[in-house]
Amino acid sequence: MNWNGIGNLLGRFLIFMAATMALPVAVAIYFDEWALRSFLISAFITFFVGILIYKTTKKISILTFKDGCTLVTLGWVSASVFGALPFHFAGVTPSYIDAIFETMSGFTTTGASIFKDVEILPNSLLFWRALTQWLGGMGIIVLFITLLPNVGSVAMNLFKAEVPGPSTEKVKPRIQGTGQILWLIYFFLTIIQIILLMIFGMPFLEAVNHTFATLATGGFGFKNDSVAGYNVYIQYTITLFMIISGVNFSLYYFVLKNGIKNLFKDAELKLYLAIIGLATGIVTLNILPLRQSLEESFRQAIFQVGSVITTTGFTTVNYDVWPVLAKFLLLLLMFIGGCAGSTAGGMKVGRFLILFKNTLVGLKQILHPNAVYSIRINGKPIPKQVVSSTLQFFFLYILIFVIATAYMCFLGYDLPEAMGSVAATLNNVGPSFGAVGPVANYADVPYSGKILLTFLMLLGRLELFTVLIMFLPDFWSIRIGRK
Amino acid sequence: MNWNGIGNLLGRFLIFMAATMALPVAVAIYFDEWALRSFLISAFITFFVGILIYKTTKKISILTFKDGCTLVTLGWVSASVFGALPFHFAGVTPSYIDAIFETMSGFTTTGASIFKDVEILPNSLLFWRALTQWLGGMGIIVLFITLLPNVGSVAMNLFKAEVPGPSTEKVKPRIQGTGQILWLIYFFLTIIQIILLMIFGMPFLEAVNHTFATLATGGFGFKNDSVAGYNVYIQYTITLFMIISGVNFSLYYFVLKNGIKNLFKDAELKLYLAIIGLATGIVTLNILPLRQSLEESFRQAIFQVGSVITTTGFTTVNYDVWPVLAKFLLLLLMFIGGCAGSTAGGMKVGRFLILFKNTLVGLKQILHPNAVYSIRINGKPIPKQVVSSTLQFFFLYILIFVIATAYMCFLGYDLPEAMGSVAATLNNVGPSFGAVGPVANYADVPYSGKILLTFLMLLGRLELFTVLIMFLPDFWSIRIGRK
Repeated sequence: MNWNGIGNLLGRFLIFMAATMALPVAVAIYFDEWALRSFLISAFITFFVGILIYKTTKKISILTFKDGCTLVTLGWVSASVFGALPFHFAGVTPSYIDAIFETMSGFTTTGASIFKDVEILPNSLLFWRALTQWLGGMGIIVLFITLLPNVGSVAMNLFKAEVPGPSTEKVKPRIQGTGQILWLIYFFLTIIQIILLMIFGMPFLEAVNHTFATLATGGFGFKNDSVAGYNVYIQYTITLFMIISGVNFSLYYFVLKNGIKNLFKDAELKLYLAIIGLATGIVTLNILPLRQSLEESFRQAIFQVGSVITTTGFTTVNYDVWPVLAKFLLLLLMFIGGCAGSTAGGMKVGRFLILFKNTLVGLKQILHPNAVYSIRINGKPIPKQVVSSTLQFFFLYILIFVIATAYMCFLGYDLPEAMGSVAATLNNVGPSFGAVGPVANYADVPYSGKILLTFLMLLGRLELFTVLIMFLPDFWSIRIGRK
Repeated sequence: MNWNGIGNLLGRFLIFMAATMALPVAVAIYFDEWALRSFLISAFITFFVGILIYKTTKKISILTFKDGCTLVTLGWVSASVFGALPFHFAGVTPSYIDAIFETMSGFTTTGASIFKDVEILPNSLLFWRALTQWLGGMGIIVLFITLLPNVGSVAMNLFKAEVPGPSTEKVKPRIQGTGQILWLIYFFLTIIQIILLMIFGMPFLEAVNHTFATLATGGFGFKNDSVAGYNVYIQYTITLFMIISGVNFSLYYFVLKNGIKNLFKDAELKLYLAIIGLATGIVTLNILPLRQSLEESFRQAIFQVGSVITTTGFTTVNYDVWPVLAKFLLLLLMFIGGCAGSTAGGMKVGRFLILFKNTLVGLKQILHPNAVYSIRINGKPIPKQVVSSTLQFFFLYILIFVIATAYMCFLGYDLPEAMGSVAATLNNVGPSFGAVGPVANYADVPYSGKILLTFLMLLGRLELFTVLIMFLPDFWSIRIGRK
């Protein structure tokens, strides 16, 4: 392992993290809040540890993929560990573990909260909570490398480790350029949504917080009842931007470059929109008997479907009282998630596209054993290696889901709660059902459960492999020789 | 499609089915039961339809794999449709659909019942119900082909269609020989279990019924409380024989041939026993606070674990009142199932062995991209094609599970019930949780649900592909030329 190179970048990453804390510091100064002190101490500690690691390591310009995975995992863990400091020093969380849970939930854009009452929190802490999501949404390591000068080949392995996805399409030949473009689009959409929310009557800071939580598909609320208290225009705006955030951001670049005409030819986007349409239709009909009007049913259905498939986790209604079918569909949507290359979590629509096509090909192969089939998406053949690693990802995902669910059952949750809590964290959704449902939160989960769920958020966000290879004994073996 | 060859064999199969009804006829005569008439009419109809198809088709000695799948699927469907006639004519089922549900449940060794009170049924019908399981257990088409003279190459494709499994090991060079050996071992174990149950105090007919239900991993009970009312010796005997039935029967042949020394070197068997041991340990501890003694907890735990992993479905206790963890483990065991080449259902331990090893290899491959790994089981490399079709099987299985669960939710069942009913039929277990749990049955499931669950039993028993390829438009296309 190239500990020098990893440490050097990690040190600089922590300095970058300390710098991001300048934003909530500004908010705290503006509102003259007591939380200012906790931000200053946290920023100082983060900066100090960062500079210490940076100064004791040497810069090395080559990182292997293995090094990349290590750095990305360490980067995300330390972002959460140091990002949790402001909550901890402000004394708003019962313990440091809770603070880490909340921060990991932010960076991974899960949006699962341990705060029973968010409305008593100071603005600066609420803003920091929202900012963690926004930074995590498009990939905090990707953001970091776009800001670094001369990272060269290092960037590619970091990008691959943080954004594994089934689609490896680069919009620019240089990975740093790709990262910059994606972050620019993200930034641009952020501005638009803030303006729209303000037009529909939301105050500035609330609009910023909600926009960060929407575009990152995070879902941390500014109010205890999430988005339920806002007017229908705001609800529809958030619905729209949630769905926008679940789309592969590369597609927006190609729209800017080539015009909109090819947008809806993308197979993954078509499937994504078809799933949203179908699920919204079924849920609307399923909840219609409970509602006043078709518009209300439709609005609540599309909001919740959009919120869950994009793994945002905002709510406008207590869907826990919905019929079983509607709730089961929400559970499934959590696993599907958004498109590859979006800010959404879940297994990704693109992976399901590969899995569906492969199943069909598999059945045809039985009929015609000598025929040679290949899977094509958007006209391009998908390599066998990608198909097989997608199948493997699916098995591993279900395996982790099942083992974690067993542990939550052991803690005494009933089956829908246990499955729901694991699904909502592994898929980076946030709220789930029952004790961890839309009108509850994760405050009362025992600490062993919180630690497990925090780990699941990280696993889900980095799409398993980046984190899991660190658990192989092989990973830690020291090899003689140049590598 | 070779309809002549398929029809010819199907006709002969129906004649064979009619012949099997001679056994319950004998029981009905012995006990002088009114059900005799329904068996005679059913046998006559089955024989008549069989001879009609046989006489109007020509014998053809070559069957493709596609033809094999068609014949096997048609064979199982018609076994259930004609095997349901005795129940229907005896007027003991509310409708013919219920009778088909019960018969498919028997042949597929599911053991899910629509009878609220089995103790009022005549002995001959109970015996027929038990016999359907015993015939289905080792594969009714396999039994049929072992009895046919000169089937030659036809046999192999039928065998592959009925016993797909991940292990394709043949114990004899000729497939008919393999079938005969397996059925002989099965027959031999049947005799032993009947004798043991009688020694421990069970009357003859009850012993026969329970043995059929045990060795076939069916689980139809002779009493309304399943096995709960019998003494501990009988409970332990049934536990032992359930676990025996979940083992690959080829292993017993090799024990007879080469001695017992190599038996426990089999990787699948080791994993199977390890899972049973681990699950029994966890469940014993989990239910201990509810029980009188450690022995009682252990006995109920190993019985239920053995019953569910082998997909038998016998019960000695209302496990619906067990803690959530124990129930969730039972749900998982349903999916694992027994070993390949056993009479058990589920996805099979052997498939999970491949999936686990493949996951480990996949992770290692990330660390060492240029290394060449292969998966070995019992020292033999597993072809890439088998690995990828196992992965595909897993995805398809979960997909079917999820879609069917959504439908059961739509019918109004709660999530554990909906998931449980689908898991218990797709995996050929039988009883599940809540409304279809150990102290309830499938009588009150709406007809659309019964039809779906009946189809799932067939899908599960024939391990998906054999049945599903018939749903491809390609399957029905007529091709010009020799094929």
